[in-house]
Amino acid sequence: MIKIAMVGFGTVGRGFARALAENREIIEKKIGKYRVTAICDSKSSITGDFRIDEAFKHKSERGRLPESRSAEEIIEEGNFDVLIETTPTDVFSGEPGLSYIKRTLKSGRDVITSNKGPLVVAYRDLMRLAERHGARIGFEATVGGAMPVIKMIRDELAGNRIKRLRGILNGTTNYILSRMEKEKAPYPQILSEAQELGIAEADPGYDVEGIDAGAKLVILANSVFGRNVRFQDVEIRGITRITPEAFEIAVEKGYTIRLIAEADENGKLEVSPRLVKLTNPLAIYGTLNAVLIETDLAGEVFVIGRGAGEKETASALISDLVDFYGNGSFG
Amino acid sequence: MIKIAMVGFGTVGRGFARALAENREIIEKKIGKYRVTAICDSKSSITGDFRIDEAFKHKSERGRLPESRSAEEIIEEGNFDVLIETTPTDVFSGEPGLSYIKRTLKSGRDVITSNKGPLVVAYRDLMRLAERHGARIGFEATVGGAMPVIKMIRDELAGNRIKRLRGILNGTTNYILSRMEKEKAPYPQILSEAQELGIAEADPGYDVEGIDAGAKLVILANSVFGRNVRFQDVEIRGITRITPEAFEIAVEKGYTIRLIAEADENGKLEVSPRLVKLTNPLAIYGTLNAVLIETDLAGEVFVIGRGAGEKETASALISDLVDFYGNGSFG
Repeated sequence: MIKIAMVGFGTVGRGFARALAENREIIEKKIGKYRVTAICDSKSSITGDFRIDEAFKHKSERGRLPESRSAEEIIEEGNFDVLIETTPTDVFSGEPGLSYIKRTLKSGRDVITSNKGPLVVAYRDLMRLAERHGARIGFEATVGGAMPVIKMIRDELAGNRIKRLRGILNGTTNYILSRMEKEKAPYPQILSEAQELGIAEADPGYDVEGIDAGAKLVILANSVFGRNVRFQDVEIRGITRITPEAFEIAVEKGYTIRLIAEADENGKLEVSPRLVKLTNPLAIYGTLNAVLIETDLAGEVFVIGRGAGEKETASALISDLVDFYGNGSFG
Repeated sequence: MIKIAMVGFGTVGRGFARALAENREIIEKKIGKYRVTAICDSKSSITGDFRIDEAFKHKSERGRLPESRSAEEIIEEGNFDVLIETTPTDVFSGEPGLSYIKRTLKSGRDVITSNKGPLVVAYRDLMRLAERHGARIGFEATVGGAMPVIKMIRDELAGNRIKRLRGILNGTTNYILSRMEKEKAPYPQILSEAQELGIAEADPGYDVEGIDAGAKLVILANSVFGRNVRFQDVEIRGITRITPEAFEIAVEKGYTIRLIAEADENGKLEVSPRLVKLTNPLAIYGTLNAVLIETDLAGEVFVIGRGAGEKETASALISDLVDFYGNGSFG
C-alpha cells in the first residue's frame, strides 16, 4: 500500500487526485494499492481515513477542506511514502515548494513535483539531498506537461550522447505566434484575445517574456546535460516585440517565427524568437509543446504533446509515481 | 558485471556491438560494467576472453569469427546474463530466433531482441515463459527503430488509458509515397529508384505489401492493448496499386496518402493506405517513422524518429538493456 500526501490542491493537485480516483484500475495494475493519506492547500487540509471524493465535496461545498493542518505539520507527521508537491511556482525564490521538498527528502521520503521553482533555484542541492537520504525526486511534470521528455531522454535514449535540445516549451506564446502568423495581426490584439480565452494570464509577463520557457530550459539543461545552471544563466528574449511585418517577411521566404528554447552539450542556453522553416517539425501550431532531441545513435527524435492542463499534468505526475513504484509491466 | 551474449552479427548486431564499445562510458554510468562474452552468427562464433574490436577484425579480415560454436551451444553453456537476439526476421515461422529466445528464457536469463518474427508468432507464449522463469524480454527495437514507442507508452503514459494508435511504421513505403506525392511519378518508377538507392529491397514485397508494418502492429496491439492477436488478424493492404492520379486528387483537396497502421482499444487492427491531411502530423516525409497515441489524460502524444538503421536499432536495444539493469539515473 503506497501512501500519498498532497501539498497543493489547485488545478494541478485536483487533476492529479481525480486521475488517481478515475484511473485507479490502470494505475494499481502497475504500482499496486495506494491511498491518499493527506491533502492540504494554502489554508486547509484533510487527513486520516478519507476518500478522494470527500475532499472534492468539501472543497466545492465549503470552499475549503475540513481541517487546518499545515503542509509543515503533514510533512512532519510523515504518514506518507511520497509527497505530491503542486504549490504555485516562484522561479526566483522556489518557495513555498522548496522548503516542503527539502523537508520531505531529508526524512527519506520521495517527492514528485509539478513545480518548476524549487528545481530552477536548487536543482543540484535537491538531487544531492535526495541521494544522501535515500529518497527520490520526480519532476517530469515541470517540463512540457503530458509531453514525454525527461524520463524519455533518460530511459528511451539511455545509450545516447545527447547533443542538443530545441523545443517549444510554452504553449501560450506558441498560441500567440501561431495566430500572428495566420492572421497577420499585431501582438497586442492577439494577446488580449488570448487573455479573453483564458490562454494567456491577465499578467502575461511570465509567459510572453520567456520566463516560463527559460525555467523549463534550466531544468532540462541540469537533468539532461548534467549542468549546474540557474535562471540567470539563460539568455532570454520574449515575444513582445515581434511585429506582423516580421511574420510577413518570414512567411514569404518559407519561414515562421517561434519562441525556441535551446540547450546543447557545449553550454548553449537560450530562449528567443527564431526563424523556423515552415517545413520544420518545430513549426507547430496552437498551445502544443514540442521538443527536438539530437543524439549520436538515434539521430533526431521529435515529440509533440500538450504542455499544460489538469489531466495532462496529472499524466506526467503519475508517470513519476509508476517510475518509483512500478513493476515494469504493461499492466 | 553484466555478461552479454549476442546471437546475430549482421547489420543490427554489429551496430549494437559498436555502440557498446563506443558509448561505454555513457552506458556504464547507468548499468555498471559489462562485457560481451559470446558472439555468433549463422556460421561462426567468438567466445571467452575477447574484446569487441577483435570480433570486428576477424569478421572483416576473414569474413567469419574464429570459432564454430553454434547459437544453441552458446545458449546451452549459459555464460551470460542477457541474450541479444538479432537474427533475420521471419514473421511466419519466427525461426530461428524463436527457438533461441525460448531456450534462453527457460534458463531464466533475459532476452533483448530486434527480431519481430518471434513476437509476432508467439507474443503471449513468450511473455508467459518469461514470467514463469523469472526472466525478462525486451523488444523496443522491433517497432520503430530509434523512435521511442513501446516503453514510452508503458512508462511515460503509464497512468493513461490508451485509446488508439496510428502510425507510420515502415520507412521504405513512406519514402516511396513521399516521392510519389512530390514528383507525381508512378509507383514502379519510384520503387526502382528506391531500390537503386538501397532504400527498398530487391524483393520489396515485405515492405510494400504492408507485411513489415502489419508485423509491428501485432506487437503494438499485444503489448499496448493486452491483445493476443497474430499476423493473420491484421487487415492489410499495401501501396502497390496507388496511382499518381490518386495523389493528384488527394493533394488538390489538401490531403496526401500514407500507409497507416492502426490499432485501437475496440480491436481495430489495420494497415492500409489512407488519406491524411497535409497538416496532420502523420503527413511526414522520407524514411521516418511516426506514431500518434491517443490517450484519456495526456490527450494526443506524437513521436517521430528514425525507424531503421544500424545505430538507431542499437539505441533501442540499449534502452532495453538500461531498462533491465539501469539505476534510473541520468548518468
